[in-house]
Amino acid sequence: MIEDKNQQRTPLSALGEFGLIEHLTQNFKIKQTSTIKGIGDDAAVLNFDNKRVVISTDLLVEGVHFDLSYAPLKHLGYKSVVVNLSDIYAMNAKATQITVSIAVSNRFPLEALEALYDGIETAANIYNVDVIGGDTTSSTSGLLISVTAIGEVEAEQEVYRNGAKPNDLLVVSGDLGAAYMGLQVLEREKEVYKVNPNNQPDLEPYTYIIERQLKPEARKDIPKLLLELDVKPTAMIDVSDGLSSEIMHICKQSDVGCDLYEEKIPLDPQVISTCEEFNIDSTTVALNGGEDYELLFTIAQEDYPKIKANPNLTVIGYMKESKEGLHLVTRADTRIPIKSQGWKNFNE
Amino acid sequence: MIEDKNQQRTPLSALGEFGLIEHLTQNFKIKQTSTIKGIGDDAAVLNFDNKRVVISTDLLVEGVHFDLSYAPLKHLGYKSVVVNLSDIYAMNAKATQITVSIAVSNRFPLEALEALYDGIETAANIYNVDVIGGDTTSSTSGLLISVTAIGEVEAEQEVYRNGAKPNDLLVVSGDLGAAYMGLQVLEREKEVYKVNPNNQPDLEPYTYIIERQLKPEARKDIPKLLLELDVKPTAMIDVSDGLSSEIMHICKQSDVGCDLYEEKIPLDPQVISTCEEFNIDSTTVALNGGEDYELLFTIAQEDYPKIKANPNLTVIGYMKESKEGLHLVTRADTRIPIKSQGWKNFNE
Repeated sequence: MIEDKNQQRTPLSALGEFGLIEHLTQNFKIKQTSTIKGIGDDAAVLNFDNKRVVISTDLLVEGVHFDLSYAPLKHLGYKSVVVNLSDIYAMNAKATQITVSIAVSNRFPLEALEALYDGIETAANIYNVDVIGGDTTSSTSGLLISVTAIGEVEAEQEVYRNGAKPNDLLVVSGDLGAAYMGLQVLEREKEVYKVNPNNQPDLEPYTYIIERQLKPEARKDIPKLLLELDVKPTAMIDVSDGLSSEIMHICKQSDVGCDLYEEKIPLDPQVISTCEEFNIDSTTVALNGGEDYELLFTIAQEDYPKIKANPNLTVIGYMKESKEGLHLVTRADTRIPIKSQGWKNFNE
Repeated sequence: MIEDKNQQRTPLSALGEFGLIEHLTQNFKIKQTSTIKGIGDDAAVLNFDNKRVVISTDLLVEGVHFDLSYAPLKHLGYKSVVVNLSDIYAMNAKATQITVSIAVSNRFPLEALEALYDGIETAANIYNVDVIGGDTTSSTSGLLISVTAIGEVEAEQEVYRNGAKPNDLLVVSGDLGAAYMGLQVLEREKEVYKVNPNNQPDLEPYTYIIERQLKPEARKDIPKLLLELDVKPTAMIDVSDGLSSEIMHICKQSDVGCDLYEEKIPLDPQVISTCEEFNIDSTTVALNGGEDYELLFTIAQEDYPKIKANPNLTVIGYMKESKEGLHLVTRADTRIPIKSQGWKNFNE
């Protein structure tokens, strides 16, 4: 949150559109055998042999999805890739390529875009995906990032949202609510900074939750793990809008009901302590916070022995007949209907 | 340019993000056999068997790429699809799917987005492509449209920018410069309207060039025609930034030079008459105007007899050794070096 007034500022107009794309993508290496031709022609060319191709796309808008007063551009570039790859993994697929387009106003110097693309490149390397195209244009205000992610999957391995059956178990990877609480801490520190710019915040107690907000990871490991465990989920979705919203998607598309057990919801100790500090209910945060980028899936009960010992996976619920509805079973053993709070970003 | 003050205005917040996507895409039909799963899961799923997959993406930004004071939203939706499909045809491929993401501020009512999606759907139907995904989000200002186009092509049919050889012929489809001159007319009428909103402009003499600006078409027919004529271009690109810029791309990537003949450049009579009216040189417009979405390609001389009688195609130049450079050969038989003016949208 401390601006370096001496940083170098090269205006974007010094490069022009073609020069800018070339400059920003010159280090990007092709790693996937399915990439025949990457950046540099009218379109990229890919070859998936007989595999299924999966495609997903997301927009990230400054002032809506991120706040540059605390999101470093490198982390933002990283996150913009990760949130899209998460959708590919939610199909039980392997991510192979991305396209990245940005619209940016002239208030951003070249060095800012270099930082952004540094994060994009870092994510592309860590997740082993090729950057195969994109568009770079000016905007009248702010920064917007549009990423399309492409992946491949054997036809018999793909997992949709609509295959959950009554009696299936509901499983989630990792833990929930941390990204939301990280955002609360960052928003609070931003307000403190506005009042006193010399205040140095102690963010040490919040390192995990802040990292989950600013630099989340997608669960590339889970489709691989499931294959190793010989478990094919009956339905799968990634947790981007909050657990309750994702459960509702699976239940609606699979035409099933669900009991979700409050006591089973995996929470990091930092989430619990920060929720206490902010006087927010941690279950509400897990249900409605979002941006966890964990995978939520259902499995047949017979597969339970295969996953029960795995520290990455937690059984949090039980699928029921559609007519029984969706409920949170609380620690006090009361049943509360699950409603989506989701991310409503068109509120006026 | 006349606003209907009585039009219905439903605020976007009345639907929420999920409701909005569902509402806008509910009529979209799947037409391609390669589309296994369209909108409605974490990602779309496609099956191209052994064909190559081509992917291209573009951003259109309000105030940079379009002006809603004269671009009707339905036309804008149509155009945002067409400009992306053009890149797929430039690979000599068949377009099969698109994703469409929009960021939109609350000043747009639902009815505006319905008009936009009506245009998107119309284009998808006419060009026979499936809308398989997208993202809908709010923006802090204005409208932004991000389209990713997907196509398929047999490996032996794909055409890059880098295959042109000395002695090849340079060929262009259709005519050039019309979209740019249409924009000049629209910009002039906008200024007139500002001064006198009751003035009814007579746009009859400009119907073709205005349509080329507001509702351009991509050359879906050309890859098909070339296949029928048994002509495989050695290099191909679409004319989005202007003829000179596209020639430079082919020459740079193919390591060749080029003589472009001014007298051969195909111009519509409305372009010529409007250029006279605006006192602009029509060759300059064809070279630098852009947004024509015609296909520019090179062919071996031996293929000339196959294309010479076709009214869709005009031979406009001749490829040379790289060291001979790029020149416009004028009507007065002088040689002028070709320089890109292109579309520089980062000018301050």
